[in-house]
Amino acid sequence: MKVTQTVKKILSHYESDNPGTKRNIASMLMQGKLAGTGKMVILPVDQGFEHGPARSFAPNPDAYDPHYHYKLAIDAGLNAYAAPLGQLELGADTFAGQIPTILKVNSSNSWATDKDQAITASVDDALKLGCAAIGFTVYPASDFANELFEEIRKMAEEAKSVGLAVVIWSYPRGGDLSKDGETAMDVCAYAAHLAAQLGAHIIKVKPPTAHLEQPEAKKVYEKEGIDISTMAKRVAHVKQAAFNGKRIVVFSGGASKGLDGLYEEIRGLRDGGANGSIIGRNTFQRPREEALEMLSHIIDIYKGKA
Amino acid sequence: MKVTQTVKKILSHYESDNPGTKRNIASMLMQGKLAGTGKMVILPVDQGFEHGPARSFAPNPDAYDPHYHYKLAIDAGLNAYAAPLGQLELGADTFAGQIPTILKVNSSNSWATDKDQAITASVDDALKLGCAAIGFTVYPASDFANELFEEIRKMAEEAKSVGLAVVIWSYPRGGDLSKDGETAMDVCAYAAHLAAQLGAHIIKVKPPTAHLEQPEAKKVYEKEGIDISTMAKRVAHVKQAAFNGKRIVVFSGGASKGLDGLYEEIRGLRDGGANGSIIGRNTFQRPREEALEMLSHIIDIYKGKA
Amino acid sequence: MKVTQTVKKILSHYESDNPGTKRNIASMLMQGKLAGTGKMVILPVDQGFEHGPARSFAPNPDAYDPHYHYKLAIDAGLNAYAAPLGQLELGADTFAGQIPTILKVNSSNSWATDKDQAITASVDDALKLGCAAIGFTVYPASDFANELFEEIRKMAEEAKSVGLAVVIWSYPRGGDLSKDGETAMDVCAYAAHLAAQLGAHIIKVKPPTAHLEQPEAKKVYEKEGIDISTMAKRVAHVKQAAFNGKRIVVFSGGASKGLDGLYEEIRGLRDGGANGSIIGRNTFQRPREEALEMLSHIIDIYKGKA
Amino acid sequence: MKVTQTVKKILSHYESDNPGTKRNIASMLMQGKLAGTGKMVILPVDQGFEHGPARSFAPNPDAYDPHYHYKLAIDAGLNAYAAPLGQLELGADTFAGQIPTILKVNSSNSWATDKDQAITASVDDALKLGCAAIGFTVYPASDFANELFEEIRKMAEEAKSVGLAVVIWSYPRGGDLSKDGETAMDVCAYAAHLAAQLGAHIIKVKPPTAHLEQPEAKKVYEKEGIDISTMAKRVAHVKQAAFNGKRIVVFSGGASKGLDGLYEEIRGLRDGGANGSIIGRNTFQRPREEALEMLSHIIDIYKGKA
Amino acid sequence: MKVTQTVKKILSHYESDNPGTKRNIASMLMQGKLAGTGKMVILPVDQGFEHGPARSFAPNPDAYDPHYHYKLAIDAGLNAYAAPLGQLELGADTFAGQIPTILKVNSSNSWATDKDQAITASVDDALKLGCAAIGFTVYPASDFANELFEEIRKMAEEAKSVGLAVVIWSYPRGGDLSKDGETAMDVCAYAAHLAAQLGAHIIKVKPPTAHLEQPEAKKVYEKEGIDISTMAKRVAHVKQAAFNGKRIVVFSGGASKGLDGLYEEIRGLRDGGANGSIIGRNTFQRPREEALEMLSHIIDIYKGKA
Repeated sequence: MKVTQTVKKILSHYESDNPGTKRNIASMLMQGKLAGTGKMVILPVDQGFEHGPARSFAPNPDAYDPHYHYKLAIDAGLNAYAAPLGQLELGADTFAGQIPTILKVNSSNSWATDKDQAITASVDDALKLGCAAIGFTVYPASDFANELFEEIRKMAEEAKSVGLAVVIWSYPRGGDLSKDGETAMDVCAYAAHLAAQLGAHIIKVKPPTAHLEQPEAKKVYEKEGIDISTMAKRVAHVKQAAFNGKRIVVFSGGASKGLDGLYEEIRGLRDGGANGSIIGRNTFQRPREEALEMLSHIIDIYKGKA
Repeated sequence: MKVTQTVKKILSHYESDNPGTKRNIASMLMQGKLAGTGKMVILPVDQGFEHGPARSFAPNPDAYDPHYHYKLAIDAGLNAYAAPLGQLELGADTFAGQIPTILKVNSSNSWATDKDQAITASVDDALKLGCAAIGFTVYPASDFANELFEEIRKMAEEAKSVGLAVVIWSYPRGGDLSKDGETAMDVCAYAAHLAAQLGAHIIKVKPPTAHLEQPEAKKVYEKEGIDISTMAKRVAHVKQAAFNGKRIVVFSGGASKGLDGLYEEIRGLRDGGANGSIIGRNTFQRPREEALEMLSHIIDIYKGKA
Repeated sequence: MKVTQTVKKILSHYESDNPGTKRNIASMLMQGKLAGTGKMVILPVDQGFEHGPARSFAPNPDAYDPHYHYKLAIDAGLNAYAAPLGQLELGADTFAGQIPTILKVNSSNSWATDKDQAITASVDDALKLGCAAIGFTVYPASDFANELFEEIRKMAEEAKSVGLAVVIWSYPRGGDLSKDGETAMDVCAYAAHLAAQLGAHIIKVKPPTAHLEQPEAKKVYEKEGIDISTMAKRVAHVKQAAFNGKRIVVFSGGASKGLDGLYEEIRGLRDGGANGSIIGRNTFQRPREEALEMLSHIIDIYKGKA
Repeated sequence: MKVTQTVKKILSHYESDNPGTKRNIASMLMQGKLAGTGKMVILPVDQGFEHGPARSFAPNPDAYDPHYHYKLAIDAGLNAYAAPLGQLELGADTFAGQIPTILKVNSSNSWATDKDQAITASVDDALKLGCAAIGFTVYPASDFANELFEEIRKMAEEAKSVGLAVVIWSYPRGGDLSKDGETAMDVCAYAAHLAAQLGAHIIKVKPPTAHLEQPEAKKVYEKEGIDISTMAKRVAHVKQAAFNGKRIVVFSGGASKGLDGLYEEIRGLRDGGANGSIIGRNTFQRPREEALEMLSHIIDIYKGKA
Repeated sequence: MKVTQTVKKILSHYESDNPGTKRNIASMLMQGKLAGTGKMVILPVDQGFEHGPARSFAPNPDAYDPHYHYKLAIDAGLNAYAAPLGQLELGADTFAGQIPTILKVNSSNSWATDKDQAITASVDDALKLGCAAIGFTVYPASDFANELFEEIRKMAEEAKSVGLAVVIWSYPRGGDLSKDGETAMDVCAYAAHLAAQLGAHIIKVKPPTAHLEQPEAKKVYEKEGIDISTMAKRVAHVKQAAFNGKRIVVFSGGASKGLDGLYEEIRGLRDGGANGSIIGRNTFQRPREEALEMLSHIIDIYKGKA
């Protein structure tokens, strides 16, 4: 399939990157049912590591098997599949060339008391497993933020030098941040901006609420009359914070809600100019057929058909 | 001896590994009286380091000599022998080629107040000593968990790149975990899953009890009606948590009990699909002839003959 | 354009540097409307990282786009443009060769509770992006001062070895230092001296007040009758502290004030022998035309025409 | 001189070592008046570093000169001389080839408040100075034990790879250990075992008392009826803990006592199968002639003549 | 000029060093008015870094210029000039080959609350700047002593391997040490000994007082009747502690006092066998002509003419 003008435009913003990295970004944008549209739906499955296997997979026991997720992402026509090391090792050969993969190179778990992550895979691992990108979580606002920034800086430089793309999960938490603040408008926009400054090609943040957390920022939002009344407006503002929309931003599934609520939220993301969604539990915790149906509907939303 | 279909099947799940690592995994599965069955009994002797020499070897003073354990493992027809650096150095040449060895590359001792381990050997040491694998202990839940995860990540990557196998002892302890929680059903399953995610080829956990530790997990076990009423059911669940049974999981000897209790427990492990047992003190703290007899009986259990 | 005698004189003070580094220092001194005068006006845009995107760019939303700042610095005839990694990545190719750039290699953000900075870019990044220099912030007096000194020492050595110039932002804060002390006469002079000792080619400090902070220093200022009554006198003293004026020293914009106050301050800087100004928020937070006008006036001041 | 059967037997236990390391172990066993007997007397002079020069050398001021100790060790017919970097640098050339030397690569001093040691020399230093071995102190039980274990692990691996021998001073202290516990039977045996597990070729511990420190160990000593009533019995148990006597174990001089007490203790060490003594202050703090006489008597004890 | 017998004798004590390092030690001993005598006067100028520029240079503003110190040291006929990185960079080319320089590779400053120093230059810097030696400060007794020892160990090994000499400033402070203790007899002797053990070629300590600080040491000084009644006796004891006088020891200028007091002290140093003085503030804080006169007088003292 020939790279579309839309995708070429997006690639043109990664002007400092080598052809290897651009090819890998393109591989994700030209994959699946949204190929060529500039939109993406990504399947992330790191919940086994983060929350434990039963909490993640018992509702749909087929999902204990790493092959399940590869197949689901391929069959649903998604753009990419993201997972930790062990999970990608079990499938990388079987499904080689069938879907771009993102190696999640750091991880937390449900016993963690610090807002930190352990580095659990390397750039070399990503190369050996044939991945298109590495994925890394930063926790802006936490006591470990600087350390995490320094870790991704080194790994991103290495990844880019060998032609991989870099995806940053930017999830503010810890420090003085309130629980509501984690999804506040100003906080999400700042989170996206920090990821862009750190050199991310693709940025993952949470859908923002209308809450404003940082007093200094709140003053500016009010003084400048920034409209944050709807999800679409808020998402547009997050995109703006990501270098005036020149970086790909995808949004997580948000808090659990019914399918209608989810579709409604995704329409807001779409209308605000989001590049797409990255949806884990909502996908693999329901039976395969239901998941395929849901993903098909989400893809239709991004295509403007729903 | 030709590699059996059973072993070939197991090897096929290590799809990302190089032939060197597969050969070393195969060398353990094709060794001793259980060769070719997909089952393993491993002799681990790190108690001298962990608890001191007298507590470990005074009940059977021949065991002070490192050669004793090599011979015992060979004569009993076990699959592999695991020990720290100094202990393998004293025997590696004498018994070269007679039994696969696992170099325990980190260690604690009875004075330790932290739930941490010191790195006490390297991947290069393992190569020089002709080992088939490195062994590493992680303590999920402890304050040092992230550090231990990062250490094994680096060592595992190096080991795999030079064709060695990786065995992870996954023993949750420390942090908020209760003493009972260390062998809880949800905890053992999570421990096995974490080891799999960290890229282990062989995972060692403790036999799980029916206790459920983490409240969020407990809810799921109850809601999904996961049957954990028997050892066999619990072991099957642990195997499921290890990538749907696609990773080798062996179980430690558990708390001291009579031989009948031990055999009973091992029948439960076997019936649940465990790949085998890793038994230290129960073995070398009794006279050699008694130990050989016990190991013979355990092997018979795994063969389905007892 | 031929290098002027004034610039040659300045370059002669960097006697230990290789021709590559001298060329890069010269590239900044020979750029824009102040080319050849030994004076510089630099545009720094790291406020997005440091304070968040809305607080930085909402007053002039065009500034969300990294291209905006490149264009502004070029069109205004400035000497150089400084920014963090992501922001330079988005423009480095488009504007290659049009203006010297300074890669800000460490950064803080508005959630930081420590007086520390994270390293967020490398010397190799600077080379790949075609930069003339790296920029690094130190916080003398803070608990992290020694760590920051050691970081810039390593990066400066590496930068110089590959022909890059080194710019140090020397901002005392933290530790026992009072808020007023951060811009005290003795503190600014000491800050400039420390940067010079650390091997900086270009030093950025804040315009000093007449306050004296350190008791031991105060005694000397009084005993020796050092005249610190005017901005020009104070700036001359800072230059003196920078190896008797043999290091380039530029001054930040100072606290927000009206344009007349700003121009007045810059005349003081000029009269004291400052090498120029480095002005961020005052520039990009007003409409482009107003910013160009303001910068034109500042340049005229440094030319002695205003 | 031809290597004796006794020494060949000892060397055969270092089965994993390369010929370079074996040659260096042999060089110490085949040196001086005890050459070929499998026994050793070593002169260690690190007290200047550890306690200061006057406390160490004022009683016999000739000993301020590093040449003094080389000469003393040579003239007394000892097996080896151990000292820190600076002290070996001053003599390494003058006395090259006259006596094997052990470079003490870590050191503490009398101001230390932590139970830790600084690394003060490298394996490369040992090679350049023509040493036969490196010497390293570990403090099992201290808060720094894991760190010290990791340090010696790295240095031992490097030393062995270039054909040097490794001597570990294993001195439990700190943590929960009582003062009496530092020389307790169980503690000394454990200390020797840990050094063996860490890969030491030669182990230095203190002569054990009949005290038992660790409750869990005490139970085993009592249950198994281990005889620790005499120094000879206790030393035999320490040797047993050192891989069934297959590692060389030497004992420090113990607390200061009269010469008769010292000789008595050394007869106990000899009768228990100790490989020898390592005696510092007792040696160089008395006049040279008296020291030579004392060492001659000690050597006679190890030869069974006194 | 031919190397004198006196200097050859001194060089012979550096028996483990390569010819490159010996040449650099010789270059300092064969420089200036004391060339060939085995005596040295060194100009150290790190006070700008340590105390700030005004406190250091305002009394004699010409001294703000790094060239000033090079010229002063050359014109006064001194043996060497020591300074931090930036200060040597500004002069290294202009004065190349005119006087041996010592690059001070670690530094503290007047805001430091810890008894620690930051590494602010490298061995490679010293080579590039044509230095004869690196200079490093250790603080025995401080909480950072072990860290500082490990840092100089690494840098000294590297420096020696490329033919540079190593100068250690050994200044006990911090920990339990009293203020008087910093210049106590036992403490200065111990400080000199530690520097020698760490491999220093040249040791800088403070002139000792008759105070005895450490109780265990005090007992020995009293028991052995060590005569510490005069500066000459005390200096002789410090030299003795520096490997029986086989290491070069120079003394700092001591507390500020009149010129007569200073000359008196230096006569004491000379009579005790000191290798010389290292004098900073006393030199550059007076007008150049006065400084030259003072240095001339000091040199005459060391020549035995005053």
